[in-house]
Amino acid sequence: MKISSKELSKYDRFYRANLINSLTGFKSVSLIGSISHSKQTNLAIFSNIVHLGADPALVGFINRPLAAAPHTIANIQSTGFFTINHIHSELIDAAHHTSAKYPKEVSEFNAAQLTEEYSETFPAPYVKESRIKYGCTFKEIIPIRMNDTFLVIGEITEIHLNEKIISADGFLRIEEADSLCSLGIDGYYKTEFIKRLPHAKCNS
Amino acid sequence: MKISSKELSKYDRFYRANLINSLTGFKSVSLIGSISHSKQTNLAIFSNIVHLGADPALVGFINRPLAAAPHTIANIQSTGFFTINHIHSELIDAAHHTSAKYPKEVSEFNAAQLTEEYSETFPAPYVKESRIKYGCTFKEIIPIRMNDTFLVIGEITEIHLNEKIISADGFLRIEEADSLCSLGIDGYYKTEFIKRLPHAKCNS
Repeated sequence: MKISSKELSKYDRFYRANLINSLTGFKSVSLIGSISHSKQTNLAIFSNIVHLGADPALVGFINRPLAAAPHTIANIQSTGFFTINHIHSELIDAAHHTSAKYPKEVSEFNAAQLTEEYSETFPAPYVKESRIKYGCTFKEIIPIRMNDTFLVIGEITEIHLNEKIISADGFLRIEEADSLCSLGIDGYYKTEFIKRLPHAKCNS
Repeated sequence: MKISSKELSKYDRFYRANLINSLTGFKSVSLIGSISHSKQTNLAIFSNIVHLGADPALVGFINRPLAAAPHTIANIQSTGFFTINHIHSELIDAAHHTSAKYPKEVSEFNAAQLTEEYSETFPAPYVKESRIKYGCTFKEIIPIRMNDTFLVIGEITEIHLNEKIISADGFLRIEEADSLCSLGIDGYYKTEFIKRLPHAKCNS
């Protein structure tokens, strides 16, 4: 079956959003924690998180237009720090709930009954219930003018995890901590390891 | 266990790359097909693919620095089109093989023994063996100056898939076509559906 751009343009808004959002494949889903200057915490689920490079250790995420998602990006710009917290099976409902449109003065930590946790060395709130989490220092916001979204870039400054999931070569078996992925707007998946492959070499 | 940025900076290059690349979570892994003006085809595996928006239907991917990955981005800039092709279990080895550093005059379709397929309505090559694939019209390249990578943005212009995986609301059950995800540089995973959740609403 082939779907043309003409057909795509005829779909209703929600059908189209579900289809396009799941077409691009499985995504890293995590909770981003931040805090304002007045110490108001914020927690929001993000699924468009992207690895940008290992040295410096850079991660990016796509922030929707400001009218739809203003709080996380405002906190990051004003205080310069955020945390990214993996989600496991028992956290799905709470994590998904952070996508409700709470006003700025409500912390989604409270609304979703998740617990703020602070590292002595990092000012933004982590999610205590999360098993793999890392702190990022804000580096740059790149506007994507075509649709008013933003690529927010941070440098990974500290990492919290159980060392049992670290392989001898540094690879993290995050599935052993039950870290999940998502699909589309609202689908949650667990994963099953198939294999790792050696560095590819040209056929002689 | 906590890993500080000081410890991170002491890790050797490959250990650090494995760790940082898997920390950011599961990724959409796909083959990107392109063609030069002189009809030389290129196929390369990309795992940093990101949904940018549904209307217009925009997808982005991170291209490494030009010295490391020059061919796909050059073709896209010069001809304006590319395809994104999902990978299923039987395609892992061939797909991974496209990451070998072949010279420009070698098509990874041949090197990896995958088959070029053309839609009548689209100029870039699809992977015949892939079960879910879509054609993109080049829109914009945004340089990420911090580490010389690029966010390449395309608009989804046509989609090829088996209609059996389309849910009533447009959500694609891509796991039924055995579409995979990846972790880190070289890990491949299948997925298992847990659940979808309704649009989140604030607690009263």
